[in-house]
Amino acid sequence: MKQYFKIDEWRIIEEGFNPEENKVAESVCSIGNGHMGQRANFEESYSGDTLQGSYMAGVYYPDKTRVGWWKNGYPEYFAKVLNSINWIGIDIKVDGETLDLAKCKILDFTRILNMKEGYLHRTFTAELPSGKTVKVDAKRFVSIARKEIGAIRYSITPVNFSGKLEITAYLDGDVKNEDSNYDEKFWDEVSKNVSSGEASLVVSTKKLDFHVCSTMKFDIVQVGRKINVTADTIEKEKYVSNTVVLLCSKGEETVIYKYTSNVTSRDHEKSELINVSKAALLKAYELGFEALLEEQANAWADKWKESDIVIEGDSSAQQGIRFNIFQLNQTYTGKDERLNIGPKGFTGEKYGGSTYWDTEAYCIPFYLATADEDVARNLLIYRYKHLEKAKENAKKLGFSKGALYPMVTMNGEECHNEWEITFEEIHRNGAIAYAIYNYVNYTGDKAYLGEYGFEVLSEISRFWEERVHFAVPKGKYVMHGVTGPNEYDNNVNNNWYTNRIAAWTLDYTIEVMNYLKEKEPARFEELNAKLQIKDEEIAKWKDIVANMYYPEDKELGIYLQQDNYLDKEQILVKDLDPKNLPLNQNWSWDRILRSCFIKQADVLQGLYFLEHLYDDETIRRNFEFYEPRTVHESSLSPCVHSILAAKLGMQEKAYEMYLRTSRLDLDNYNNDTEDGCHTTSMAGTWMSVVHGFGGMRVRNGQLQLNPFIPGHWNSFSYKVMFRGALLKINVTSENLIVSNESENAITLSVHGSTYTVSGNETLNIAC
Amino acid sequence: MKQYFKIDEWRIIEEGFNPEENKVAESVCSIGNGHMGQRANFEESYSGDTLQGSYMAGVYYPDKTRVGWWKNGYPEYFAKVLNSINWIGIDIKVDGETLDLAKCKILDFTRILNMKEGYLHRTFTAELPSGKTVKVDAKRFVSIARKEIGAIRYSITPVNFSGKLEITAYLDGDVKNEDSNYDEKFWDEVSKNVSSGEASLVVSTKKLDFHVCSTMKFDIVQVGRKINVTADTIEKEKYVSNTVVLLCSKGEETVIYKYTSNVTSRDHEKSELINVSKAALLKAYELGFEALLEEQANAWADKWKESDIVIEGDSSAQQGIRFNIFQLNQTYTGKDERLNIGPKGFTGEKYGGSTYWDTEAYCIPFYLATADEDVARNLLIYRYKHLEKAKENAKKLGFSKGALYPMVTMNGEECHNEWEITFEEIHRNGAIAYAIYNYVNYTGDKAYLGEYGFEVLSEISRFWEERVHFAVPKGKYVMHGVTGPNEYDNNVNNNWYTNRIAAWTLDYTIEVMNYLKEKEPARFEELNAKLQIKDEEIAKWKDIVANMYYPEDKELGIYLQQDNYLDKEQILVKDLDPKNLPLNQNWSWDRILRSCFIKQADVLQGLYFLEHLYDDETIRRNFEFYEPRTVHESSLSPCVHSILAAKLGMQEKAYEMYLRTSRLDLDNYNNDTEDGCHTTSMAGTWMSVVHGFGGMRVRNGQLQLNPFIPGHWNSFSYKVMFRGALLKINVTSENLIVSNESENAITLSVHGSTYTVSGNETLNIAC
Repeated sequence: MKQYFKIDEWRIIEEGFNPEENKVAESVCSIGNGHMGQRANFEESYSGDTLQGSYMAGVYYPDKTRVGWWKNGYPEYFAKVLNSINWIGIDIKVDGETLDLAKCKILDFTRILNMKEGYLHRTFTAELPSGKTVKVDAKRFVSIARKEIGAIRYSITPVNFSGKLEITAYLDGDVKNEDSNYDEKFWDEVSKNVSSGEASLVVSTKKLDFHVCSTMKFDIVQVGRKINVTADTIEKEKYVSNTVVLLCSKGEETVIYKYTSNVTSRDHEKSELINVSKAALLKAYELGFEALLEEQANAWADKWKESDIVIEGDSSAQQGIRFNIFQLNQTYTGKDERLNIGPKGFTGEKYGGSTYWDTEAYCIPFYLATADEDVARNLLIYRYKHLEKAKENAKKLGFSKGALYPMVTMNGEECHNEWEITFEEIHRNGAIAYAIYNYVNYTGDKAYLGEYGFEVLSEISRFWEERVHFAVPKGKYVMHGVTGPNEYDNNVNNNWYTNRIAAWTLDYTIEVMNYLKEKEPARFEELNAKLQIKDEEIAKWKDIVANMYYPEDKELGIYLQQDNYLDKEQILVKDLDPKNLPLNQNWSWDRILRSCFIKQADVLQGLYFLEHLYDDETIRRNFEFYEPRTVHESSLSPCVHSILAAKLGMQEKAYEMYLRTSRLDLDNYNNDTEDGCHTTSMAGTWMSVVHGFGGMRVRNGQLQLNPFIPGHWNSFSYKVMFRGALLKINVTSENLIVSNESENAITLSVHGSTYTVSGNETLNIAC
Repeated sequence: MKQYFKIDEWRIIEEGFNPEENKVAESVCSIGNGHMGQRANFEESYSGDTLQGSYMAGVYYPDKTRVGWWKNGYPEYFAKVLNSINWIGIDIKVDGETLDLAKCKILDFTRILNMKEGYLHRTFTAELPSGKTVKVDAKRFVSIARKEIGAIRYSITPVNFSGKLEITAYLDGDVKNEDSNYDEKFWDEVSKNVSSGEASLVVSTKKLDFHVCSTMKFDIVQVGRKINVTADTIEKEKYVSNTVVLLCSKGEETVIYKYTSNVTSRDHEKSELINVSKAALLKAYELGFEALLEEQANAWADKWKESDIVIEGDSSAQQGIRFNIFQLNQTYTGKDERLNIGPKGFTGEKYGGSTYWDTEAYCIPFYLATADEDVARNLLIYRYKHLEKAKENAKKLGFSKGALYPMVTMNGEECHNEWEITFEEIHRNGAIAYAIYNYVNYTGDKAYLGEYGFEVLSEISRFWEERVHFAVPKGKYVMHGVTGPNEYDNNVNNNWYTNRIAAWTLDYTIEVMNYLKEKEPARFEELNAKLQIKDEEIAKWKDIVANMYYPEDKELGIYLQQDNYLDKEQILVKDLDPKNLPLNQNWSWDRILRSCFIKQADVLQGLYFLEHLYDDETIRRNFEFYEPRTVHESSLSPCVHSILAAKLGMQEKAYEMYLRTSRLDLDNYNNDTEDGCHTTSMAGTWMSVVHGFGGMRVRNGQLQLNPFIPGHWNSFSYKVMFRGALLKINVTSENLIVSNESENAITLSVHGSTYTVSGNETLNIAC
């Protein structure tokens, strides 16, 4: 594994400029605030290899799909995260010569992502083709405290000459998506305005008519003194700029402070966009860059207080886990329940749509433990709001009732178009049901069930009811034609995980129904007036729960991933010539499908979710059978194995699995970080630490901890928010120190013994 | 079912012009000669809905593929039948007003495909917007006798005015394919030349550099007298034309005779194309239209002598079967072993590539019985020539040896890109092996085995050897991850048909090897020096033959289409609400896959191919189980069922199945004839008559006949070429009349009794 970035506990440091690593660094050093995000592109022109990316959360484009052979039921469009107005642009000319690092001799270069305070910092000294040398120091951030605001401090100093400096600050909406299916551009101009010192640009998407408005203001400071110059203005299609020409002397610094405000029609009336944007801009401008940056540092300090993990004795691991927590916090803040977590966050275009089952399976546990309850709740409500679309989706696929949530979505409609996934990877419905259970189990917020949860559960249950059928030869309910979490098998019958999560959903739905009938009868009546659940339906659900078919091998004592799994040629990954790995880059698809090799936890995903329903020996037998057949070619795979291994006391295995994702993007492990970071899998890494090494569970409303220290770590600590308490849990080789950083007392269990920690108290437990 | 064309035993007649049916008529009335083909587009401008199509056999384009999600092993391109130079164009202006049927009042209109003599004939009287009325009579054909030549006689008569007639005869290479994946044009201009009375145009494909050269000459005849006029010439990019302006009087006919010659770099040096084309053109021009047309009628008479089927008492059936035979003879003549039979022949672009397993499974029997042995032999050699590509294809998919022929191809490389087909519908390999058996069985040409057949068989056997694996729980060889002929099930395990045809191939390969060892030892040594077949391989082949797993249900006495087929919900097609049909237009793909419904013969395809290895009762049990579950949504399905039903004495069923394809395109049964005709399935219809109703088989080198008269036919007769004899077999309600139209005596079996018919003799057998 290569290590490109320097190790530092709070910063990601690129030292020296390597054009071939530029897109990776652009991804890794991306900045975002939940409302918008920006890859670590250069402010000045760059003619080398780059992926320009500026994204506004929730602003997407329904691109025309591209399929080989159309199948009935395919969606008409593929929703794409949209590359939006470039608001960072500052072109520099020195005596008429453009500063472009692709054409300079670079004498020194750093690009640093400061995770503690939430900004990007770049410095370089570059010799232009003419021999003139300049020194640049550029800082920028998108504000956590003021979500519309992006601010840049860009400083330039002539090193070996005095001359004319031309600075062009611009807003450019004439951008495109690299992954546009037919090379189309997606934006139209609505309006623009530019005068000396400020500019605004409004663009709209060619479809769906999202409007985005960016405004900018700037100051120029030379040798510490703000100067007033009249800027030349340029207007082109979807483009506005100000150009300032200055004389500057050798060794003297010129700084441009560029402030931008970026708003969208998702949040404001279209007619108000310019006003709203300008108002926010003016406030930020008046506050000034340094004050804004201080505000930013404080906001990040608050985030770290709730979510930091500290690892002693392993700086590389420390950097890795902080990077993951930082990116997750940049991507989703939980303030807008219309948003969700894209697989690449704000770091790239790839995978288009914003929401996968990753959210429910991997991200919700992170937000549950590190943010207010409302954040996870909003992620659940997001799906509640898509329930009607999910019902339409089920209808479209020929079901008479029920809801099938999409595999990939922006607005609740399916965007994916590969039949074996779109139509068959239906276990996603189970994860959405499970997330409700998980949320209520963690928070104790049973009110959610009556408010939102039961409707979703009922409609998912109705889907499962129709999706199974009774197989006469087996005398059981079966489910044919599915793709399990292991996408290296398609269109199989009786995927154990899918059968299990389906039956579990039915069972849980009945349980919730009984709870509501008893505890919230009025609400239940109200709900049932809407849902009209018939007695026959409930009877059928019970019958399915009682008579679901689960493929298993009694001799081996394992569940079978699907019918006839053991008919496959059984080879272990360790016995495979490593030149075959990763399989998805070396093998044709049919060969992958025929093999016994598993992409990511499948049977084990079920045993992980439903751990409380299985004894350790059952889990161990399945783990020992399946893990050696698993190639972990999804970034979502190792964390589940790490947590299960930790639970089973297989500490080395747990650590080995943890290492496979903890620095996935920092070390560009899969050679694809240039497309963006694996944002959702970062939550899995967090889970490996907290649920795995920390052994954290919630059972019967109580927090349970069964920690151990992995690898060569000296100690580690993590933060957990649980039912009103904020705990710092520090695991050392001698003891477990629980610091209650809130006012509220909490009772928890450690290695099976129960303790109470009062508000603002610290408890030391010898381990 | 609608009937659009008039019934006529030798002609397809469209009476009255219906723009919404225009593309259907363009497909149905296409003309071709194996070298080139042309949809029944209008010569004059037409601004209405049309699919312009002019095709040169073997000239194709590797268009960029379009896939949803790329899978390892997918081909980089999709080869397309290429719309080529438009050579039919004759624009007409009347006093400056363009003749365009989309803008005229049409007083009468006929479009007639004369199948007996092989030409297209169109007449109409049209009133232009100005009120001027013209009468047009246009005949054209592509010559069977001179494959490069297309000739047109286009006559125009002013009905109610005298005025200025402007005739523009042109060659236009600025054409595109409607199915271009990214709307690109595929042609570049190479050269052009135009002078009064003649023109030439050479264009080349942007990839692969195929060159096509068309040349033209024309004569103008007014009131029966050839006139000399100087034409204006026009040159544009990829376009040349001659315009002649004439005065014409009311009621007086002006005729343009346009002769074109169309040659390609497949047949000639690029530098010679113009010369070759002009030489052929000049000969045709000197002969003149009427003589060429007589030559054409004679050539078609020869074809009909060999392949006609006559049905007494059912004109609709008569027209249908002749249409099918006509299209097959237009598409492939067997003269060029680099060519094959595209699924749409020369009647449309759809389905791109030229060769599917249709050729081996459906077309070879037709050509075996209705053309010289060389024709079928050339179709086999086509695959022999692609053997190296098929070996590369297997390597690409990770096999260490063996050959996997492509699903769709132009040049031996795979073009299809849907994993469940491309990588998994591998039974095509079996059909290619079976065709060798079928050819040798029919012709007795065992020399083919040593010359070509054994190499192909060996490499296919090697593929099967690696594609199966030993399943420990079953103690048998299994084959996982395949798609059988029933494409309504994907990625299944142990498709009975594929397992069976694989084992059969291995068995037949060993049989052929033993034959060669014994009868052609020298040739065998030579072959084996090349093939290096090891003893272990032969032992393994035998082991697989002996221990292949065949799913079956002993209680029902049937073979199972695949593992666990009976776990599906079992519903018969007759019990399905007809509004669900066709499934492929009404159901989502997963629903189709989960259902028990079958697209086309699958188990039954195997019992059809290997009929001689199974007793009638086994075939009957399987037929009675599977046919009621079959929706016949492939045009290739009914014929197999028709033949099996005929064999089992289920005469009504046999006729019902026959009717489903006999007029598929004439009656636009599937609403898709506008894209082109279902050319390959036409061979299946022919088989239904000859193998089904005619009960024709070849067993132990002898022709067997077990005929019956279906439906309300009075009698029917068909032609069969068999080992040097040409027979006309006439089935009446009283007797079977075998006329030997050759010099060679033949011994054949009718209803189990053996007869000998001498050369030029006729035998009457009472039935």
